[in-house]
Amino acid sequence: MPPIPSSLHIFHPCLNHYLKPNFFSLSYFSISAPKFPLSSQLIPINPRTLSSVANALSPSENGSGGGGDRSSALAGPPVLENSVQKIDVNPPKGTRDFPPEEMRLRNWLFHNFREVSRLTGFEEVDYPVLESEALFIRKAGEEIRDQLYCFEDRGNRRVALRPELTPSLARLVIQKGKSLSLPLKWFAIGQCWRYERMTRGRRREHYQWNMDIIGVPEVTAEAELISSIVTFFKKIGISASDVGFKVNSRKVLQEILRSYSISENLFAKVCVIIDKIEKIPIDEIKKELKSVGMPQEAVNELLEVLSVKSLSELEEILGGAGEAIAELKQLFSLAEKFGYSEWIQFDASVVRGLAYYTGIVFEGFDRAGKLRAICGGGRYDRLLSTFGGDDLPACGFGFGDAVIIELLKEKGILPELVPQIENIVCALDHDLQGAAATVATMLREKGQSVDLVLESKPLKWVFKRAARINAQRLILVGNTEWKKGMVSVKILSSGEQSEIKLDELE
Amino acid sequence: MPPIPSSLHIFHPCLNHYLKPNFFSLSYFSISAPKFPLSSQLIPINPRTLSSVANALSPSENGSGGGGDRSSALAGPPVLENSVQKIDVNPPKGTRDFPPEEMRLRNWLFHNFREVSRLTGFEEVDYPVLESEALFIRKAGEEIRDQLYCFEDRGNRRVALRPELTPSLARLVIQKGKSLSLPLKWFAIGQCWRYERMTRGRRREHYQWNMDIIGVPEVTAEAELISSIVTFFKKIGISASDVGFKVNSRKVLQEILRSYSISENLFAKVCVIIDKIEKIPIDEIKKELKSVGMPQEAVNELLEVLSVKSLSELEEILGGAGEAIAELKQLFSLAEKFGYSEWIQFDASVVRGLAYYTGIVFEGFDRAGKLRAICGGGRYDRLLSTFGGDDLPACGFGFGDAVIIELLKEKGILPELVPQIENIVCALDHDLQGAAATVATMLREKGQSVDLVLESKPLKWVFKRAARINAQRLILVGNTEWKKGMVSVKILSSGEQSEIKLDELE
Repeated sequence: MPPIPSSLHIFHPCLNHYLKPNFFSLSYFSISAPKFPLSSQLIPINPRTLSSVANALSPSENGSGGGGDRSSALAGPPVLENSVQKIDVNPPKGTRDFPPEEMRLRNWLFHNFREVSRLTGFEEVDYPVLESEALFIRKAGEEIRDQLYCFEDRGNRRVALRPELTPSLARLVIQKGKSLSLPLKWFAIGQCWRYERMTRGRRREHYQWNMDIIGVPEVTAEAELISSIVTFFKKIGISASDVGFKVNSRKVLQEILRSYSISENLFAKVCVIIDKIEKIPIDEIKKELKSVGMPQEAVNELLEVLSVKSLSELEEILGGAGEAIAELKQLFSLAEKFGYSEWIQFDASVVRGLAYYTGIVFEGFDRAGKLRAICGGGRYDRLLSTFGGDDLPACGFGFGDAVIIELLKEKGILPELVPQIENIVCALDHDLQGAAATVATMLREKGQSVDLVLESKPLKWVFKRAARINAQRLILVGNTEWKKGMVSVKILSSGEQSEIKLDELE
Repeated sequence: MPPIPSSLHIFHPCLNHYLKPNFFSLSYFSISAPKFPLSSQLIPINPRTLSSVANALSPSENGSGGGGDRSSALAGPPVLENSVQKIDVNPPKGTRDFPPEEMRLRNWLFHNFREVSRLTGFEEVDYPVLESEALFIRKAGEEIRDQLYCFEDRGNRRVALRPELTPSLARLVIQKGKSLSLPLKWFAIGQCWRYERMTRGRRREHYQWNMDIIGVPEVTAEAELISSIVTFFKKIGISASDVGFKVNSRKVLQEILRSYSISENLFAKVCVIIDKIEKIPIDEIKKELKSVGMPQEAVNELLEVLSVKSLSELEEILGGAGEAIAELKQLFSLAEKFGYSEWIQFDASVVRGLAYYTGIVFEGFDRAGKLRAICGGGRYDRLLSTFGGDDLPACGFGFGDAVIIELLKEKGILPELVPQIENIVCALDHDLQGAAATVATMLREKGQSVDLVLESKPLKWVFKRAARINAQRLILVGNTEWKKGMVSVKILSSGEQSEIKLDELE
């Protein structure tokens, strides 16, 4: 490609948000793009001017001034527009493309989410990615609220890309009302969005597997949810020596707040502050707790309780009468019956960051301590009433698609997923492309997958492609065989080759 | 629930966009909500005032002034926040929830999309739902541009919810560059967004199945794509008497434009105008064509050609030398070899509404003529260069999830999809819930799906649930049997009942 004089650089007026030097160039895949003499900081760029420059330049760029007769119809297809915009070929910051190899991994992960959900009798649901902003705005100071991808749509509605799935679930449950037969056992795999500060490995979107049980007040529900996650871990090769669950109950905090006659209204706020305990200094936590109205003495007891790592120690502090202790004991007893005792441990410091949890909370963590929480969940018996609905007992968890992949990489057990196809079908002669199409149709009607070679290519190319796509058989359609109603079949793993009658091809 | 005095209505300050009379009420599912005396049109509402009203009212609303001793821990979970917001329980206008029954249908449809893509050897890919706005802004007057869900993110980037998948595909192909082995055969199933005027049956989001072939200049690629759609139709019970494909080539228009020495730059604009031919009056079309710069004579020939419905008639008008005729003939010849001749017909009026098509275009239509196009696609050999990439021959189609469902409904062949589960496991005694959990774990480890009853419920309730979820077996864990290491198993279709040893349960 000949070098292009910089005066021929074409600008697209709609791209003015992205105007950067070097950014617009007709050269493609060029490593050293010609430097553009403008700097957007130095010279204000008027999109209108650029647009007319583009229009003025386009005829010479296209090199075709209109053919004039029909023979020029062979001169190649027309250009779409009279300007070229060199776009940023990366997905927007914090988002991902899924080329085939990434998509295979995503599908593998989702398949396992679905398979576990099937084993536990959960039904799949989904909700809009775009929801009313109001659904996600709570006042407890959660991180999630400041990270909302929200905007006003063309109908002046405040909308947001969902940061989580649970509020949509609550909305749908209220909407369906009495028509639903309880308990509901629902799961969803949905993309969620948070406008986070980008740090290594943190993205602005992720997929989240949720399982929720609506209508069961007993702790059997939480036990069943954790059991599902354990089943999932086992399925993908993760053991109790790799990960564990920290379990707590927010009722512990609630009991402490009540013992100091602290208003119920502080509960969610206090939980959200405590959730930050491993992220910000302890003095900061104390300050925040006091600033929302907790007396010094209560802050002290609270922080003391948070360091407790055994149920018996907790019982000594709280006494044995409260719900918190009773439910936690029941959960640990059920864990034994489900067979996952070695996976769970009590940890009073776990409260989770979402405002709406009311009872048992839990999170999955890697025992090596290298990663963020793998998943998390809990009971949220009062969420529906905050939306104006009648409360129903409810619990659930969210399990993202990012940290688990990191863990599998750390352990070196990320599956190697290759494309798989049964046949590659190729005509040996351009005139036989129709015949090859007939063969492909026949095989596909029998349920066989077929990569049909759509151009005349040398055999060497065909073998290379067959290897790349992992084909099991190569079926060649050649003139001599085709006249006899036959094709040549080569098993690619063994090299075994034979001529087979078309109607005997399975 | 006692009636609530209107002075106790609580407002959520974040909801001020939605403030309507009647909208905020503590009553739930109430048909005649008490009238609220304010009108947002008459009295300006200050969210700050409302917030403090809410705070002032909250203690009496909660009815708990702080317990004072630990026994009050049994008084129920704390409220999340000090206000109730009655949300709109419907998904945002033009969007959908997928409760289990809708999700089953969506999964069934997607399964068939995937199965056909597998049979034809296509690999699955995906892209971000949120893309740079620049990717979708073309200047040919397409409807799609005015319908963009776009906004500025918190980092001041112009972004848009994708209205289609092809530009993202082009972006990814440019990004991957030489690392890709051509041809690519990629498919995607993705949600797309358009802010359309809401009419019956039209939504603002839909899922779209796309298949694209990158790197094949020959019309074998288009023939393969149409073959895939035919395979899909057959799979779901649709025949050639229900639907057909109208096929044309944009090179027909191109040849006409060239014969009148009309600038190449008008090509995309003319295509977009012609696409509206069945939606707006013909005089309007003529006026638009003239206004972009086509001479009267050219408009007349163009409109004459558009009414042509046979290839031979077209050949008479254009002569036999051009690419358009040659490619169309090849496509019809290949259709015969693939075995779908009866599905396709030539129709010069089909040009499709997207600016970037350059060659063969096609759309699937219902022969009853009741529905919009079912799917559509074509060749777009020049899209990559409009983004600053090197062009590659390319073609593809989009197939939405809405019209096909309408067609299946019209034909009365929408599948009836019911939940399916192998076992429902229930403890006959509250003390045996742990035992039931053990049974559930055992069965799930053997790959059996189990709905575990999580509460103590009467047997009548259990049978009703078993019927509702379509369980095959009911497994009861009772005291007498459990002591013997056995459970009671009932085959629900036959009523056959037996006691089975736990380790013999398959």
